[in-house]
Amino acid sequence: MAPFKKPEWHQNERNSDEFTTSVVSGVHAEPSMPQSKKGRFQKRNPSIPDIEQLEQDLLKGERSALARSITLIESNAEHHFRPAQVLLHKLLSHSGKSIRIGITGVPGAGKSTFIETFGTYLCDDLGLNVAVLAVDPSSKVSGGSILGDKTRMEQLSRNPRAFIRPSPSSGKLGGVHRKTRETMLLCEAAGFDVILVETVGVGQSEVIVRDMVDFFMLLALTGAGDELQGMKKGIMELADTVIVNKADGANKQMALRTKAEYDKILHFLQPATKGWGSRAFTCSAMYNEGIADIWQVIEKFTEVTQQSGVFEERRRLQTKEWIYSMIMDQLQFSFFQQPEIKVMLPKIENDVIAGDRTVTSAVEELFSLYSKQ
Amino acid sequence: MAPFKKPEWHQNERNSDEFTTSVVSGVHAEPSMPQSKKGRFQKRNPSIPDIEQLEQDLLKGERSALARSITLIESNAEHHFRPAQVLLHKLLSHSGKSIRIGITGVPGAGKSTFIETFGTYLCDDLGLNVAVLAVDPSSKVSGGSILGDKTRMEQLSRNPRAFIRPSPSSGKLGGVHRKTRETMLLCEAAGFDVILVETVGVGQSEVIVRDMVDFFMLLALTGAGDELQGMKKGIMELADTVIVNKADGANKQMALRTKAEYDKILHFLQPATKGWGSRAFTCSAMYNEGIADIWQVIEKFTEVTQQSGVFEERRRLQTKEWIYSMIMDQLQFSFFQQPEIKVMLPKIENDVIAGDRTVTSAVEELFSLYSKQ
Repeated sequence: MAPFKKPEWHQNERNSDEFTTSVVSGVHAEPSMPQSKKGRFQKRNPSIPDIEQLEQDLLKGERSALARSITLIESNAEHHFRPAQVLLHKLLSHSGKSIRIGITGVPGAGKSTFIETFGTYLCDDLGLNVAVLAVDPSSKVSGGSILGDKTRMEQLSRNPRAFIRPSPSSGKLGGVHRKTRETMLLCEAAGFDVILVETVGVGQSEVIVRDMVDFFMLLALTGAGDELQGMKKGIMELADTVIVNKADGANKQMALRTKAEYDKILHFLQPATKGWGSRAFTCSAMYNEGIADIWQVIEKFTEVTQQSGVFEERRRLQTKEWIYSMIMDQLQFSFFQQPEIKVMLPKIENDVIAGDRTVTSAVEELFSLYSKQ
Repeated sequence: MAPFKKPEWHQNERNSDEFTTSVVSGVHAEPSMPQSKKGRFQKRNPSIPDIEQLEQDLLKGERSALARSITLIESNAEHHFRPAQVLLHKLLSHSGKSIRIGITGVPGAGKSTFIETFGTYLCDDLGLNVAVLAVDPSSKVSGGSILGDKTRMEQLSRNPRAFIRPSPSSGKLGGVHRKTRETMLLCEAAGFDVILVETVGVGQSEVIVRDMVDFFMLLALTGAGDELQGMKKGIMELADTVIVNKADGANKQMALRTKAEYDKILHFLQPATKGWGSRAFTCSAMYNEGIADIWQVIEKFTEVTQQSGVFEERRRLQTKEWIYSMIMDQLQFSFFQQPEIKVMLPKIENDVIAGDRTVTSAVEELFSLYSKQ
């Protein structure tokens, strides 16, 4: 049973308190503006950024242009919405060329260390440009529980080929969803070859990330059965691979046993991706062991799914699903945020639960309130 | 990724072609009407049934009153909607006292034989009244692929304590959903102690049935691994028990091995019901072996979950979820059935997939069409 969703879409994000914060940190005033006017006042009421310039700089791969563009996309300010869409539209034809990888795992599985080691390997050994994004629906303005600061991935954050971006600050799921997808497109236009999307397991966040990436990996701890039981329902069935991390030292034998257990379960489950048999692997992010093998698995995956057409078909479906989910978010929002319905829904719900009225008549009454508006 | 849903709610069911069929088969004209007027014409344009009389007869447990009431609920005729809701409202306080059991399984697992044997055991050995309903979203006016006729469960259908009702005839999921839930309430008011809701594994039907029952069982074939791999994603995680049927003769040893495999998998999965460890069992519906044990499992389940409060809490959440899903169906319907959106959606979708426009701007345009109405 899905809980009652508190829906949201971009409409309700604009004109929020976050306005000043996000602007000061990223979107600059137009370059054409006289220097003398760029005082404190100007920063608090910024004009629209120069989209043409931003586009050119971003396509050259300039990190600062990318950062400013993301801030523009993430902005909740009403007057940033249109220019952000114009910018995205201009960049669309340059997007889509990366491999998008989702990473999830229980707390303690070593996600940060893994991304640090894996990302550094991709940058330094393979010469790839790597962007790290995060989906954390619980995140507040401060950045939330993951990627709030870059100290977690100190080495990677200093790598000139890497770009790390904390989770967008809107606390509501729909908004985070849209912003992360659009940020991914910006990173691709800026020339990033690999996009890593990290998520904590809050609410539906794994499903949301699965729906925006090509390859989805689950980072696991050793311990097999006990840990598996604590795992969220259906999470294993989203995974294109399970990586048992911390396979080092005294832990190594146990990690191998855990890997075998995961392989057995994966064998019983339907594959997350058509034509791809999901398997488990071990690695030690701490000691940089097994990292190159994981990249080979991803390369093999890309090869197989691109040949079969599954890769492109998934991206096509993901785009459709994105349209559909934005429509549903917006419909939900317009219904459940209507003042009369907000007042009446709990009362009517209680009447139904108490057995005083039928569900069908309850819904009919709610819609008569909705239609009145 | 969920596919684009073609939504539906009761509005679009009324005044359909099914009108005549459903009326002729069940809802009678008011008793007060002169006999002379009850010709062919009258059957095609029936008046509203006598709700008071129907209520009294149904509460006495009269099968014909129950059948007529269900037909009224299932009717797609506009003028049947209000009286159906009045009847349901009157009966609400008499509903909710049964144990609601969902049954699913792959074709060939022996669902009909199992329900025949299990139902007969409940009626004859335990003296319980048993109603058998079906959710088959693929069913047409003729009755669809399950429970289309009663010959499948010949013995049970003749049992005076049993009542078998084919799947409602609306081919669309939302309608079937509502009708089955409301039929369940009618059966409870008519004094049925056990409601068995059978489903074929079409689309989301297992999830829908899981959301309307207290206990959900998965009927499985012997064969373990191979069969498991053909199983739908997440289906095992809905099950409060897995029953390996056809554990007889030469098949018995294999059935026991299969049961052990299922137990191992269930052990790894999160329980479908809080505080209940789902386990696998074998039975032979054909030779009436292990049937009583299954009922004991269900009784134990009821005892445990009623004591912990999980039973009532689930029913409360199910009612909430029912309200919510009807609202979402209705919102979807009003949006996706709007003529301008029907025309523009595929075009806009293609533009987005081709990379010619952003998802956000696409959704914005669709909503500007929607709001115009």
